[in-house]
Amino acid sequence: MEITGIFPALTTPYREDGAVAIERFKENVTRYNKTNLSGYVVLGSTGESVLLSSAEGEDLLAVAKQSAAPGKLLIAGTGAESTAETIARCKRAADFGYDLALVKTPYYYKPAYKAEVYIRHYRSVADASPIPVLLYSVPIFTGVSLDAPEILALAQHPNIVGIKDSSGVIQRVVEVVAKAPQTFHVLTGGAGVIYPALVAGAKGAILALASALPERCVTIYESWKAGCHAEALAQQQQVAQASRTIASENGIAGLKYAMDLRGYFGGVPRLPLLPLSDEKKQQIHKLVTELEPLAATA
Amino acid sequence: MEITGIFPALTTPYREDGAVAIERFKENVTRYNKTNLSGYVVLGSTGESVLLSSAEGEDLLAVAKQSAAPGKLLIAGTGAESTAETIARCKRAADFGYDLALVKTPYYYKPAYKAEVYIRHYRSVADASPIPVLLYSVPIFTGVSLDAPEILALAQHPNIVGIKDSSGVIQRVVEVVAKAPQTFHVLTGGAGVIYPALVAGAKGAILALASALPERCVTIYESWKAGCHAEALAQQQQVAQASRTIASENGIAGLKYAMDLRGYFGGVPRLPLLPLSDEKKQQIHKLVTELEPLAATA
Amino acid sequence: MEITGIFPALTTPYREDGAVAIERFKENVTRYNKTNLSGYVVLGSTGESVLLSSAEGEDLLAVAKQSAAPGKLLIAGTGAESTAETIARCKRAADFGYDLALVKTPYYYKPAYKAEVYIRHYRSVADASPIPVLLYSVPIFTGVSLDAPEILALAQHPNIVGIKDSSGVIQRVVEVVAKAPQTFHVLTGGAGVIYPALVAGAKGAILALASALPERCVTIYESWKAGCHAEALAQQQQVAQASRTIASENGIAGLKYAMDLRGYFGGVPRLPLLPLSDEKKQQIHKLVTELEPLAATA
Amino acid sequence: MEITGIFPALTTPYREDGAVAIERFKENVTRYNKTNLSGYVVLGSTGESVLLSSAEGEDLLAVAKQSAAPGKLLIAGTGAESTAETIARCKRAADFGYDLALVKTPYYYKPAYKAEVYIRHYRSVADASPIPVLLYSVPIFTGVSLDAPEILALAQHPNIVGIKDSSGVIQRVVEVVAKAPQTFHVLTGGAGVIYPALVAGAKGAILALASALPERCVTIYESWKAGCHAEALAQQQQVAQASRTIASENGIAGLKYAMDLRGYFGGVPRLPLLPLSDEKKQQIHKLVTELEPLAATA
Repeated sequence: MEITGIFPALTTPYREDGAVAIERFKENVTRYNKTNLSGYVVLGSTGESVLLSSAEGEDLLAVAKQSAAPGKLLIAGTGAESTAETIARCKRAADFGYDLALVKTPYYYKPAYKAEVYIRHYRSVADASPIPVLLYSVPIFTGVSLDAPEILALAQHPNIVGIKDSSGVIQRVVEVVAKAPQTFHVLTGGAGVIYPALVAGAKGAILALASALPERCVTIYESWKAGCHAEALAQQQQVAQASRTIASENGIAGLKYAMDLRGYFGGVPRLPLLPLSDEKKQQIHKLVTELEPLAATA
Repeated sequence: MEITGIFPALTTPYREDGAVAIERFKENVTRYNKTNLSGYVVLGSTGESVLLSSAEGEDLLAVAKQSAAPGKLLIAGTGAESTAETIARCKRAADFGYDLALVKTPYYYKPAYKAEVYIRHYRSVADASPIPVLLYSVPIFTGVSLDAPEILALAQHPNIVGIKDSSGVIQRVVEVVAKAPQTFHVLTGGAGVIYPALVAGAKGAILALASALPERCVTIYESWKAGCHAEALAQQQQVAQASRTIASENGIAGLKYAMDLRGYFGGVPRLPLLPLSDEKKQQIHKLVTELEPLAATA
Repeated sequence: MEITGIFPALTTPYREDGAVAIERFKENVTRYNKTNLSGYVVLGSTGESVLLSSAEGEDLLAVAKQSAAPGKLLIAGTGAESTAETIARCKRAADFGYDLALVKTPYYYKPAYKAEVYIRHYRSVADASPIPVLLYSVPIFTGVSLDAPEILALAQHPNIVGIKDSSGVIQRVVEVVAKAPQTFHVLTGGAGVIYPALVAGAKGAILALASALPERCVTIYESWKAGCHAEALAQQQQVAQASRTIASENGIAGLKYAMDLRGYFGGVPRLPLLPLSDEKKQQIHKLVTELEPLAATA
Repeated sequence: MEITGIFPALTTPYREDGAVAIERFKENVTRYNKTNLSGYVVLGSTGESVLLSSAEGEDLLAVAKQSAAPGKLLIAGTGAESTAETIARCKRAADFGYDLALVKTPYYYKPAYKAEVYIRHYRSVADASPIPVLLYSVPIFTGVSLDAPEILALAQHPNIVGIKDSSGVIQRVVEVVAKAPQTFHVLTGGAGVIYPALVAGAKGAILALASALPERCVTIYESWKAGCHAEALAQQQQVAQASRTIASENGIAGLKYAMDLRGYFGGVPRLPLLPLSDEKKQQIHKLVTELEPLAATA
């Protein structure tokens, strides 16, 4: 399996009454189908998976599967705190026809979670999962990260085919790519370092920002693929700025507002996440207008 | 309502096949009934609540309610990442006859969780909860903490009656007690600082360690209550050492092993948490034997 | 040697041209002599020791020694990054007639500074120092802290007579006092936890805040000493609030401004530390006026 | 001024009696002269500057200046905690004929050091320094870091010509290069990310590892310069592994031992830094032997 290019971590839209707006979600996917995105991640951190019920999650999995254009790789977020529940979710994702399970590190009992714990957890999950597993390290949310030694130990497992590393630490990309099997895919989660990650050996990226600016993210990948380093860097510089203003400073609320500006359905996040202030909206509006002159007036 | 004295954060026992051993749980509660513990916390961090299914949680709530002796205060852990789910769990706890809801801070989207977010979240929860709310700040697991200004803002809410603060920061106890209404109860989560917290104005403690050494913890409270400061400190010194060896260094696995040594049913935690090594078991055995000469040979 | 009660960490006053205002320093000490402070710390963190030249430091040591009333214990900050330079400074402090050397942890090469490094460092310093050594752990500035095991190992050394622990972690006071020799003195560096530290077994405190509010800090000690727990707590509550507003939120600049309000010479800190904004000054003025009605109008 | 390519942060050798071995230092520089290193950094973190006396520092500055081959850029570490002392050291470096002053962030009073403090500090230093200034952000040692907004504000100053950023955060390289004047030079301090930093727009690197493996580091730069991306990545992978084993895991002691293996004079660091254990020596010997088959048997 090739896991290359740019994947958006899809957001979850809500109706005014707070329920999941499943039609809006479908419309977003349909529109993404027209881009060169390589596939979709459903129920990731950006999808507010920790704020959804099990039934809501299954609806989203089902609809994304139905709506995705042929050839789009489908990745389901399946990580739970317990090993058994994680395995159950991987099986469910397989039942829904997903290609890959994205398994974030357990993190609540972090004082107890030594590298050994993660190695056993991921091996158990990979042994039992009907579909291949991507490790998922996202320290900004979990407070824990997978380091090169344990990633490399796990990269030997035949059903562990890669990692989404959202730490932004490019040295880790270098170290993992140097020693992992060729079939192990490193994907960065940092929209500000897509191009540096690719030159360091990453195969692609899974990005929140790609839900609002998919073409901008894909272009970096394509420039790099074509060997156009100067173009890739110039594009990366713009995307890094956008990533800081939209996602780093404003989180999911900022991302959803940028989606609204670009003609997708973003809306507001679920509580306790708060909607954006007007001041923050103006900053994002200004940035998106400069970056995508036509879109922001849509 | 008086929320004073020592409350154990109850552990969740498992059968060999991994299911919840609900009979063992009942036996533990029945035995705790004979101590001077003031009540019980069900579905806390120590109870591995993040590793349990919703149905398992309800079973535990029901059985603890049935088994608790009259006069024991019943506290249910009800914190979830989403505000709506937290409220739903508070209502469920009320339906099960619980006296109080212990609501840990949401923590996943920590870059977005400013003090304002917590204030709105807790006010919404307290407005909707049929039973009074205890705030719960446990930075060692969540990576976030509530500080005095937001605690004091929330202490004004009529349905927020206290906080379990597991940070171990005694200055916060001093600051909160100084300015909160008399009816706001500060409970420490640190077995190593029960006595300092009490002198600083705390009303009691919710402790993992009290599942293994309830009498030891209660004695500190009673000595302090009786004005016997020298005794309280001497007892605190022993409990602080026990807390380090059993809980700080070995987590839930260590606590459960100490419970086994003391005649309760501890068992092993659920994966990904690993059982204790033999070396660690020996360290805990040595400590418990010195501390409780009769019990450890039971 | 008895090291008990309250010690201010003296500030360093500057003239308008930026030089050390040695006369002002002398006047401050002379005025402190009239209080029940147990002695003085010269060249501590609060004294901006890292911003002073070696010659400036020697002047301050000399003048404090000359000005201190009989019976006031004199403590010199002597910690440097290198072991040899630390020893040289201890010898210099002894030459100036100081009673104790306060030796902060080296901290620059923190990834290399394991407990073993600190144990060897402090033993070398204590072996060579002509005067007894106080360990000094101040994680807020250094990013490193001494934990109970290494403190207890060092407490066995005949020339290491105590620790100033500015972490505010009261559990560590409990643990160290429980196992250290009776002659080992734990002093807290946290003005917000003087009373909890004393009940946990500390012998006193070394405090920045005591440079501005010496009587307030001493009173807590005396109330505790007299067994008046309720008074000690009430006094502690006020001092904790003052400590937050003056020192925690505004650092040395805040402390110096509070000194000015109370009739000492505070002035401004040395660059890169910036003077206080007017808004911050007003907050401190309000607090000091409420706390010390007469003094703040002096 | 062009500040490009690879610069080693020179180590400080000691005699058996602990004094600086100035002749050994000279021999090292003389040997580095034969490589394609672009210049030398004297009195950096790797040079144990915080463990040296002022006189020792001046000797090293003088000898490096005398020994450096023509065309080698000379950079002096001049950062001190106080603004005035930093300026004095910049002037001293200029007197010794140095081309650039490398000014690390003040860091002791980190709670008080907001971005505004750093901006004022660096502007004052740059205004007064007779030679151009390089900012220096090294969070692993200082616990603080300069972020893009303040770097970009300072990049406007005519006498601030670049930054050594040792954070390893490549997104910051992207962001700074995107908006800073063309004449502002970003240099990475991370041997594991030389190549990713270069593609992100960095002009070169200042590296501890280049004291032991100068050719290996220079080759990456030259491959990238020649547009040979595949070679650059392959070389970077080896250097990243060497950087982890030698420097990240073993610090200055590890680096110095690797220097010994490669025919330079490394020796041991100054106390409190400890010499390497035999086990660690063997790990480094194995790595260097594999990487530099001839050298390690020298």
